[in-house]
Amino acid sequence: MKTIIEKYGHKRVTVVEGGITRHRSIFNGLKVFAEKQFSSHLFQKPEVVIIHDAVRPFVEEDILSKVVMAAKEHGAAGAIRPLVSTVVASAADGCLDHSLERARYRASEMPQAFLFDVIYEAYQQCTDYDLDYGTECLHLALKYCKTNAKLVEGTADLWKVTYKRDLYAAESIIKDNLSQEVCVITDANETVAQVGFLLPESLKRQIKVETVSISQSRNDNHLQSIFSGQCYNFVCVNDKKCAIQETQQLVHILEKSDIPLLHPVVLISVYLDISGNNSFSIGMEELASIKKFARETKKKNILVYGLLIQYKPQLQSKICQRGQWTASRRGEQNVLWMNTTLFMLISVYDGWHLKTQLKFFTVQTKDPSLLQETVNSAAALIMALIKDRNPELIGQLLVA
Amino acid sequence: MKTIIEKYGHKRVTVVEGGITRHRSIFNGLKVFAEKQFSSHLFQKPEVVIIHDAVRPFVEEDILSKVVMAAKEHGAAGAIRPLVSTVVASAADGCLDHSLERARYRASEMPQAFLFDVIYEAYQQCTDYDLDYGTECLHLALKYCKTNAKLVEGTADLWKVTYKRDLYAAESIIKDNLSQEVCVITDANETVAQVGFLLPESLKRQIKVETVSISQSRNDNHLQSIFSGQCYNFVCVNDKKCAIQETQQLVHILEKSDIPLLHPVVLISVYLDISGNNSFSIGMEELASIKKFARETKKKNILVYGLLIQYKPQLQSKICQRGQWTASRRGEQNVLWMNTTLFMLISVYDGWHLKTQLKFFTVQTKDPSLLQETVNSAAALIMALIKDRNPELIGQLLVA
Repeated sequence: MKTIIEKYGHKRVTVVEGGITRHRSIFNGLKVFAEKQFSSHLFQKPEVVIIHDAVRPFVEEDILSKVVMAAKEHGAAGAIRPLVSTVVASAADGCLDHSLERARYRASEMPQAFLFDVIYEAYQQCTDYDLDYGTECLHLALKYCKTNAKLVEGTADLWKVTYKRDLYAAESIIKDNLSQEVCVITDANETVAQVGFLLPESLKRQIKVETVSISQSRNDNHLQSIFSGQCYNFVCVNDKKCAIQETQQLVHILEKSDIPLLHPVVLISVYLDISGNNSFSIGMEELASIKKFARETKKKNILVYGLLIQYKPQLQSKICQRGQWTASRRGEQNVLWMNTTLFMLISVYDGWHLKTQLKFFTVQTKDPSLLQETVNSAAALIMALIKDRNPELIGQLLVA
Repeated sequence: MKTIIEKYGHKRVTVVEGGITRHRSIFNGLKVFAEKQFSSHLFQKPEVVIIHDAVRPFVEEDILSKVVMAAKEHGAAGAIRPLVSTVVASAADGCLDHSLERARYRASEMPQAFLFDVIYEAYQQCTDYDLDYGTECLHLALKYCKTNAKLVEGTADLWKVTYKRDLYAAESIIKDNLSQEVCVITDANETVAQVGFLLPESLKRQIKVETVSISQSRNDNHLQSIFSGQCYNFVCVNDKKCAIQETQQLVHILEKSDIPLLHPVVLISVYLDISGNNSFSIGMEELASIKKFARETKKKNILVYGLLIQYKPQLQSKICQRGQWTASRRGEQNVLWMNTTLFMLISVYDGWHLKTQLKFFTVQTKDPSLLQETVNSAAALIMALIKDRNPELIGQLLVA
């Protein structure tokens, strides 16, 4: 416990030795405030105390505030939830004695809050039997201090992580919470900018997206502020093969930030290849160095993945007039993104009316719908990597 | 419902129209046996009926058998579980009225079993209020037929899939159940056989492994029997780059089997590259065709992934005598796997004692510990792919 507190920089936390039962542990905690004569502010007797189970990790500030306010008014308060199953009482022979009407009863959950004097007095008065076999603090407050606790409706997330399946559920909820936002960092470079525009658009259908230019990202404070805003996912788009340096810089910024990496950060290095080469070739040394880098970075709780967006031009043969062809040669980069329809219109306007002057050429254009499809596939892979946070897949180069 | 029943070839299943409440739906189901004058065996009035919730998908035969046997003896029986939280009753003002002693009560779960005559009579006698607001069948049997149901301890997996977190848990449990066994199919080819031996050994630490040679796999029955033994994971090791044909053959066998693909099958095509080329090169066309194939296969509920085990020889310079060098040249393939220690021993025996005859050569051997490391990394990737069954990553080529 002390290692965890130190590692994540928690302040104002004191660890108290647990007892052999739940009630004895809680009592030990309360005694610190009542008995010890600490001079520090931390141990001054509080007006209200909150009791919570560590096995209910998804407690929101809202419910804490609600039970505290209710405890101030009623002396005690606790979170409740509707019963999922009917509750039955069994007779000595293991047969049904009676069943409870589900609507009249509630499951008592945590957190619970108490006026300190109420719960401390209850614990002081209660018997060894209570301390050894009891489970319900609200019951002690009622029995020994005549305090009828206010019952406050809690959220479903307050459930108790009890069985193996609950660990699965908890892991999925945490991963879900970490997959709410992604920060896309792009180069101003023309072709990268194109994907840097399309990719966030495609991602926006599934996740909140923050876009940052590489120059902005060099300003550490900007990225740090995004990171401190609970963004645990970064996508870095560039046209350099295996851009370890860019990724390294980002890792460095995240590391430098004062925010402790409570959860694994996903960092996807997207390499945009519009060379149109039919053969994709990557050196083993390069692959090995990405992997090695990813393994090192994992120790810092940052998971690095590679993603290749390969945009192979679909060769569309267009018959067009020489003038257009020259024009398109001039704006070579633009042909890439030129809308096919527009291209045809120019054809009609500039070509067909001057039939005698026509000379036909074949021009290769790139199909923008194909690019969109590739970008969507990249977005799907990015979402899968973000949602899974699979530590085994780090350092792999996926292909969109 | 009818589509599902047909798709997965369920027999002896009849769908009955549901009512607006739980009790009304169950009553509708019971009526089929009591009222309809079907001649078919299916609708003959049974001695015992089992009532179960579809939201408790992990019901085992064992608990079904237990409740049925108990129902035969006691007239009614139901699964119970310990309470996870204390149950409280609230007063009209929303404050605690009293809390129940957790040890005395149980959560009533499903399945429940009844003598048909008991439960049918209970439903016939119960009021509209019961039908509209009641939730507990055991309660009806007690109230209207004075039958005290036997309570049978169930397993934790009987829980009710209620909240979003329960869906996460259910998914993880299913994936866990599907990740118990893998079938590794290897070539008899010498180098493939080496990995075909090391890989299963490494996998065995985490999962049950069945090994099959390619020639055996050509015998459809053999693979089908493994598949029908609930094996949902296949690894096919070969030294052909992008061996779509081998994979296709396997897909064909799985498809041909009569077993409906209730769950996605994972099929990992492992390509072993011992060429030692420093640059790994793969054509875009090839990558695209793997992806296309994987997309097609996904429609059949088979998830195909690629895995490259690249074994780059670590050049170890060994000084050895000419005779040995020749020997190792002769058995070129074997040098690959030759134990370094053994190699040194031969050196001592055959070389150092004949100092005058020594001529030194540098021989490149391949480090077996490096191969082991690569194989372990491949096993880790295989386990990650099997456990995740991520449909977004199909058609990707991972590198061990």
